[in-house]
Amino acid sequence: MLTLSAETARGKVADYIPQLAHVDPKQFGIAVCTPDGQLYSAGHANTPFSIQSISKVFTLTIALGKMGDGIWKHVGREPSGDPFNSIVQLEHESGKPRNPFINAGAIAVVDAIMMGHEPKETLAEILNFVRFIAQDNSICFDHKVAASEMEHRDRNASLAHFMKAFGRLRHDVDKVLGTYFHQCAIAMNCEQLARAGLFLVSDGIDKATNTRVVSAQRARRINSLMMMCGHYDGSGEFAYRVGLPGKSGVGGGILAIAPGKGSIAVWSPGLDALGNSYLGTRALEQLVQKTGWSVFGH
Amino acid sequence: MLTLSAETARGKVADYIPQLAHVDPKQFGIAVCTPDGQLYSAGHANTPFSIQSISKVFTLTIALGKMGDGIWKHVGREPSGDPFNSIVQLEHESGKPRNPFINAGAIAVVDAIMMGHEPKETLAEILNFVRFIAQDNSICFDHKVAASEMEHRDRNASLAHFMKAFGRLRHDVDKVLGTYFHQCAIAMNCEQLARAGLFLVSDGIDKATNTRVVSAQRARRINSLMMMCGHYDGSGEFAYRVGLPGKSGVGGGILAIAPGKGSIAVWSPGLDALGNSYLGTRALEQLVQKTGWSVFGH
Amino acid sequence: MLTLSAETARGKVADYIPQLAHVDPKQFGIAVCTPDGQLYSAGHANTPFSIQSISKVFTLTIALGKMGDGIWKHVGREPSGDPFNSIVQLEHESGKPRNPFINAGAIAVVDAIMMGHEPKETLAEILNFVRFIAQDNSICFDHKVAASEMEHRDRNASLAHFMKAFGRLRHDVDKVLGTYFHQCAIAMNCEQLARAGLFLVSDGIDKATNTRVVSAQRARRINSLMMMCGHYDGSGEFAYRVGLPGKSGVGGGILAIAPGKGSIAVWSPGLDALGNSYLGTRALEQLVQKTGWSVFGH
Amino acid sequence: MLTLSAETARGKVADYIPQLAHVDPKQFGIAVCTPDGQLYSAGHANTPFSIQSISKVFTLTIALGKMGDGIWKHVGREPSGDPFNSIVQLEHESGKPRNPFINAGAIAVVDAIMMGHEPKETLAEILNFVRFIAQDNSICFDHKVAASEMEHRDRNASLAHFMKAFGRLRHDVDKVLGTYFHQCAIAMNCEQLARAGLFLVSDGIDKATNTRVVSAQRARRINSLMMMCGHYDGSGEFAYRVGLPGKSGVGGGILAIAPGKGSIAVWSPGLDALGNSYLGTRALEQLVQKTGWSVFGH
Repeated sequence: MLTLSAETARGKVADYIPQLAHVDPKQFGIAVCTPDGQLYSAGHANTPFSIQSISKVFTLTIALGKMGDGIWKHVGREPSGDPFNSIVQLEHESGKPRNPFINAGAIAVVDAIMMGHEPKETLAEILNFVRFIAQDNSICFDHKVAASEMEHRDRNASLAHFMKAFGRLRHDVDKVLGTYFHQCAIAMNCEQLARAGLFLVSDGIDKATNTRVVSAQRARRINSLMMMCGHYDGSGEFAYRVGLPGKSGVGGGILAIAPGKGSIAVWSPGLDALGNSYLGTRALEQLVQKTGWSVFGH
Repeated sequence: MLTLSAETARGKVADYIPQLAHVDPKQFGIAVCTPDGQLYSAGHANTPFSIQSISKVFTLTIALGKMGDGIWKHVGREPSGDPFNSIVQLEHESGKPRNPFINAGAIAVVDAIMMGHEPKETLAEILNFVRFIAQDNSICFDHKVAASEMEHRDRNASLAHFMKAFGRLRHDVDKVLGTYFHQCAIAMNCEQLARAGLFLVSDGIDKATNTRVVSAQRARRINSLMMMCGHYDGSGEFAYRVGLPGKSGVGGGILAIAPGKGSIAVWSPGLDALGNSYLGTRALEQLVQKTGWSVFGH
Repeated sequence: MLTLSAETARGKVADYIPQLAHVDPKQFGIAVCTPDGQLYSAGHANTPFSIQSISKVFTLTIALGKMGDGIWKHVGREPSGDPFNSIVQLEHESGKPRNPFINAGAIAVVDAIMMGHEPKETLAEILNFVRFIAQDNSICFDHKVAASEMEHRDRNASLAHFMKAFGRLRHDVDKVLGTYFHQCAIAMNCEQLARAGLFLVSDGIDKATNTRVVSAQRARRINSLMMMCGHYDGSGEFAYRVGLPGKSGVGGGILAIAPGKGSIAVWSPGLDALGNSYLGTRALEQLVQKTGWSVFGH
Repeated sequence: MLTLSAETARGKVADYIPQLAHVDPKQFGIAVCTPDGQLYSAGHANTPFSIQSISKVFTLTIALGKMGDGIWKHVGREPSGDPFNSIVQLEHESGKPRNPFINAGAIAVVDAIMMGHEPKETLAEILNFVRFIAQDNSICFDHKVAASEMEHRDRNASLAHFMKAFGRLRHDVDKVLGTYFHQCAIAMNCEQLARAGLFLVSDGIDKATNTRVVSAQRARRINSLMMMCGHYDGSGEFAYRVGLPGKSGVGGGILAIAPGKGSIAVWSPGLDALGNSYLGTRALEQLVQKTGWSVFGH
């Protein structure tokens, strides 16, 4: 379907934690899940990888379910114009993160959904939700990755302590970070991930099981946030080239939603300069060109 | 169709130039142009207003036609996270504006399309293009508004001289600004504006006249830029609430594109804190809720 | 000597940690130590207070003794133009603090002088040095203040983790912070503090005991850093009004050096908007007006 | 006296305007003027050069004479931590420049002293003052340099228009810039410049003619501003290495004041990375080491 065979450039595997640096950069997988739940896949579509920041879409969905628009007291919804781990904006805006998809924002979201519970309980809630929307109870945390992230937590610890200093986190910083790193360390393969995104394809309904997961308005709003902020300071580039709401992770995965058409998961560990999957982005670009699935055309 | 009658809050008319401050804030107009060119309108849909920054969509289209991707040497395509007239980003990024819709970016675009010609020639080209896509030769510049903007040009002059200092403008600063202010001073009414946006509804084809204006890919990309950057640091908010590519102007107009469905122009002079039409945004929000035209649903 | 009796405004006591918030704001003390070691004092000159950031002068002196100009690999020596706890500059300059007197810089200095040792050992070294230059072995840490700072460490923890993420701290963040907070929690009274500054008055020689503490060049350089950076983003104001190298602490103390003339310690807990002692600054201003001790006159 | 003979590195001549780029970088001059007006000089001490930003000391003195502390409504007195031509700080602080020695601040000062007069009149006033303090009526503007700066004014025009947009300039931008560029284009040699600084050596009195130029307090305050802000973001470095109040210009000149000891002018056109004379700074460093004139020692 796609002509990536000629691609030799593949970007650079994330190396800020050893667990991610070990992944073989030659791998590539893709899966498309159509509204009826049918899966089409190619390549390493059954190899689990660390979904990392893609998990932020799921925790945001949980947060909206728990507190509705109340979550926007904790986090904004504008593109930041800055890299995923920037702290400059936090200082200029009194510790309130610009959106739920930069690291600071995702940390604020996980703090918000903890609601006084222990990390274990919150993590169970997150995992259960992901298993439910993916219709797959085999999905698990990769504890080694989580532990490795905790060990190299300094940049995120800086963000968390900064927000805490402004009274923006209610829970203990290390507990919030522990929960956040586990959330990011969920391991999924392309097929599972594409399936998990299905509820965003059909206005909040998982049409394969005929279950409403969220309201139509909420599904659209989550998609809008993925479009505007899903690729950090590369979000404009992704919208320009791919034209779909999408969320990337440093593990090399991207989840993209074509409303009414399908949920797409791609994975290739090599990253471009902004931290998004190099081949994954190209694959999505080609897919959209061939299918015309861009939300900006018809 | 819309229930704005209960709205008493209307925002504040732009007052940085006297010509805009004089406009009656009670006015409201809306027009929808369907793919076949049929117009539906209500309120003051035939009252001309200053399109201001909405013109940036048209000059970007001209620039892409003249130099294709070459325009991206002059301007980026990422949301800036800053207000429309911010200069901070310019200093941090060597005078290259983040996107073509902030003021600095639009000034860089007009400099790029001048290509050594005099303002008069470039302005004729811009006006001809707007008349062509709107299918209306009565559209004109409001020279009083342009003169008033030139008189109060300091903030934009600062941006232009800054870019010139970095070698990013080829023409005389005052000539570029004169051209820019005239482009912003094009006067159109909602019906004309909705009609002018039609080519972006159907993948670059004006279906009413069966004319291809730009390629499908280009139309989609212009839409993506409107979505990501069309409302400055309120772009995320507009995407969240309205869910359509849109471009606002301080004259109180907004052009929004629902691919495959229609081109919508709203106008109400009162602005919100970020400089976007207060009632116009609400009207679009209601319209999309009723029609389901959000690009993020289906 | 001074006419502060008419002053009713006294600023606001630091309240970011409870231990400092409890101090009675009505207190005021001053001590001047002349080159021969003679002390002149008034008011609450024998009441111990938390020297806080004034300690940064002493740890910088230790660092210069241990590694000479090597310390400038860890920290710069320019005014920052930012508040004491700003993190923006750190992100723009890859985690290297602008100078040793902003919080981030002082944390980098304490990390540098730890040299693989435990906090206890480093703290013993710092305390011994302070006791030596003050010629007073009764000087101690206030462990309650240190514990209170550790409990409310988020802002400083953010700075430390940020630097650690850039590889700029060699030791464990909590150990560095523990050492830093104890250093800041040294309790001294005005007489002890004025005495401790004596070596900076006479080109590095404590003339009262005829001991060279540092070289003449080093003493001058430490004074230059106090002048340029000793009052954060109020350093220009202090130089303008007082005209002496000085270092303030949020405990309300200020140490000022008049080369060849004397070492002055003032203390009054109420702070101005920039976090410097309100009455202390006024007292120094009057003292310099009456004595002509400004380094900018003769 | 100085051992600069071994120096082969000489920095880079300012090349942002052609008139400055033409200067022979091999030249070096120095002059010291003692309180009694006696001049000691070496090298090209009689070759005129463009004093550029050193002129800001003289216009600040004039401004303080005309409006006293009223000038501080127009400009601050804190180090900026930014390069001489940065605009970022202006945006963050509503168009008010941090201090009178960055370009924006000096432009605000010249606007303040114009007081409704034409550039010609203000320039006559500035030149008369400089001739008076230098006791030399032969000092003139270099109109070629001024014209060249006006032609390449974009960066400064950006700063001026920015301030004008915030209502911080009262006069026409081009008139203010014309005055500013002429002020900067005053041509003086080292002997004239050292003589001109004499009133800052002895608390405001020109002891050679026994004339009070400014009050003692004002002389000290001008010196404090030179110390804190005289070398832009290299001010800390200059204070650390030289330890005297000083003001540099991109023409390669530096005026330094040793209170009670002498006024020193050095000139060598090659600049370091921050825009300050490379050899000039080294010469001052050696001079202070040999004479012990640092204000931070005694």
